Amino acid sequence: MKACVFDGQEVRVDASWPEPSPAPGEVVVRVDLAGVCQTDLEIVKGYMGFRGVLGHEFVGTALGGRHEGRRVVGEINCPCGRCDMCRAGLGNHCRHRTVLGILGRNGAMAERLVLPEVNLHLVPDAVTDRQAVFAELLAAALQVRHQVSLEPRQKVVVLGPGRLGQLVAQAMKAWGLAPIVVGRSEAKLRIVRSLGIDAVAADAAVPAHDADVVVECTGSAVGLTMAMEFVRPRGTIVLKSTIAASHGLNLAPIVVDEVTVVGSRCGPMGEAVEWLERGLIQVDPLITAEFDLDKAADALAAAARPEAIKVLVRP
Amino acid sequence: MKACVFDGQEVRVDASWPEPSPAPGEVVVRVDLAGVCQTDLEIVKGYMGFRGVLGHEFVGTALGGRHEGRRVVGEINCPCGRCDMCRAGLGNHCRHRTVLGILGRNGAMAERLVLPEVNLHLVPDAVTDRQAVFAELLAAALQVRHQVSLEPRQKVVVLGPGRLGQLVAQAMKAWGLAPIVVGRSEAKLRIVRSLGIDAVAADAAVPAHDADVVVECTGSAVGLTMAMEFVRPRGTIVLKSTIAASHGLNLAPIVVDEVTVVGSRCGPMGEAVEWLERGLIQVDPLITAEFDLDKAADALAAAARPEAIKVLVRP
Repeated sequence: MKACVFDGQEVRVDASWPEPSPAPGEVVVRVDLAGVCQTDLEIVKGYMGFRGVLGHEFVGTALGGRHEGRRVVGEINCPCGRCDMCRAGLGNHCRHRTVLGILGRNGAMAERLVLPEVNLHLVPDAVTDRQAVFAELLAAALQVRHQVSLEPRQKVVVLGPGRLGQLVAQAMKAWGLAPIVVGRSEAKLRIVRSLGIDAVAADAAVPAHDADVVVECTGSAVGLTMAMEFVRPRGTIVLKSTIAASHGLNLAPIVVDEVTVVGSRCGPMGEAVEWLERGLIQVDPLITAEFDLDKAADALAAAARPEAIKVLVRP
Repeated sequence: MKACVFDGQEVRVDASWPEPSPAPGEVVVRVDLAGVCQTDLEIVKGYMGFRGVLGHEFVGTALGGRHEGRRVVGEINCPCGRCDMCRAGLGNHCRHRTVLGILGRNGAMAERLVLPEVNLHLVPDAVTDRQAVFAELLAAALQVRHQVSLEPRQKVVVLGPGRLGQLVAQAMKAWGLAPIVVGRSEAKLRIVRSLGIDAVAADAAVPAHDADVVVECTGSAVGLTMAMEFVRPRGTIVLKSTIAASHGLNLAPIVVDEVTVVGSRCGPMGEAVEWLERGLIQVDPLITAEFDLDKAADALAAAARPEAIKVLVRP
């Protein structure tokens, strides 16, 4: 089959990549649409040391199992079910997990993938493919509220109006908060404003150590430093970017201001699908471009551009 | 009067430093004994840009006010009482605070200091000066439990058997936990073990991502990287060191493992005095040396040595 593969050196589309073969409990899914995520861009720079088929955001059609013939999205973490984390109900943190397109398991930028059947969620008819492909990213946004207590009167700042920041800001609004999005790209901030959410250019924002919660979605180490300037003493920073600071990073303000930093990764996909069905999230303004799988390398390059939000890949 | 002063370049003892003059609501305290803290060592390296009399750990005798003639220790944060933080009950995070020997206020390594009367806590007769001088540091240790939920069955690791780590470990034991202290100095680890607390040399410890709570008291950026290796997914790191990493620092594990990092600074002094009175904390094994105020520069040098725990200064 055709697949977009990273071999540790370069990204290429392989027209004769081996078909995935399902283990017991797994099903084959025909990928109808895939998305490019920040993590994919980091992987091709070496993050996680991953080799194989890229991609973990998808909507597809189950080719077997009890959902055969129906549209599905899928949880990307595949837990062992037996380790201490799994037994504690923390399967996403399984000691022996594989993760679709990220860790030990071929991903979604291919004609077909396999996942455990229990990982799949049916996509309601009211949700289009172009909406459903956002389910994994939206789940990561919704995860914020599962980790941090949010009250409507709190001051919330979202740093980075990119792929994830856009969804976090929309979710915050749906939760009754009035987030302020701070970013560098005026085009992206315009999209935020078009959805009725406040947005401020980073060079015009005056951080005043007064935000109760700052959600850091910049994808860069600078984001954490900015977050420390926006957050109030005893406030909370939700850290979404997998930061590896190459130069110095002063974390003293975390201690002096007794800030809580909460690392946040994957979230509840079933809830995300429900939000999409209920029309709580606008995804159309976030789609920058769509590429055929043949042009997946171009899709990754397009997704890496500063103005890009969500780039899709269609097998 | 005599005072140990940092002028931005060097530490010196000035025999004719001006007497401190109390503002309304403040009282003069004769310093009977002062302690050298990690923060003092950082200040003389440039931290906080502080100039003036060093030191914030002390026990003394009130020379005025309602505690006149009685032994006191003192809260080091002097809040304005009017800003948003003060009104929210977070006076330690006052926007306009001064901090004894750290920020805009001369400190405790002197014959006399001034503090607001409301900052003073009486020292019970049962508590010796050499115990009372630990009150501020002990309060910082006790603060951990005011910020993090601790359960007796949790696995707790304390990184760094120094000044603060020793007290955190003893507090953990008093709370019914069985902490494991990890450190580099065999001499310091021996003191930990002599108090019935487990201690492991850093180069023999095998971090297994399985600690529920890691309290980072190493005073160095390496400590946070170690903490990320010891803490379990969804666990908590209490960050006590004001870290300014000079080289790269990979914070991705915080996001991937959804770890919570809680910055922690000053704590409840009244509670600390009570703990000392109740004999819950052993401080004698932690006293490395005592210097006359005349030799305060030597005291700071002694406190900076790897084997040193608490160095005292007697005016």
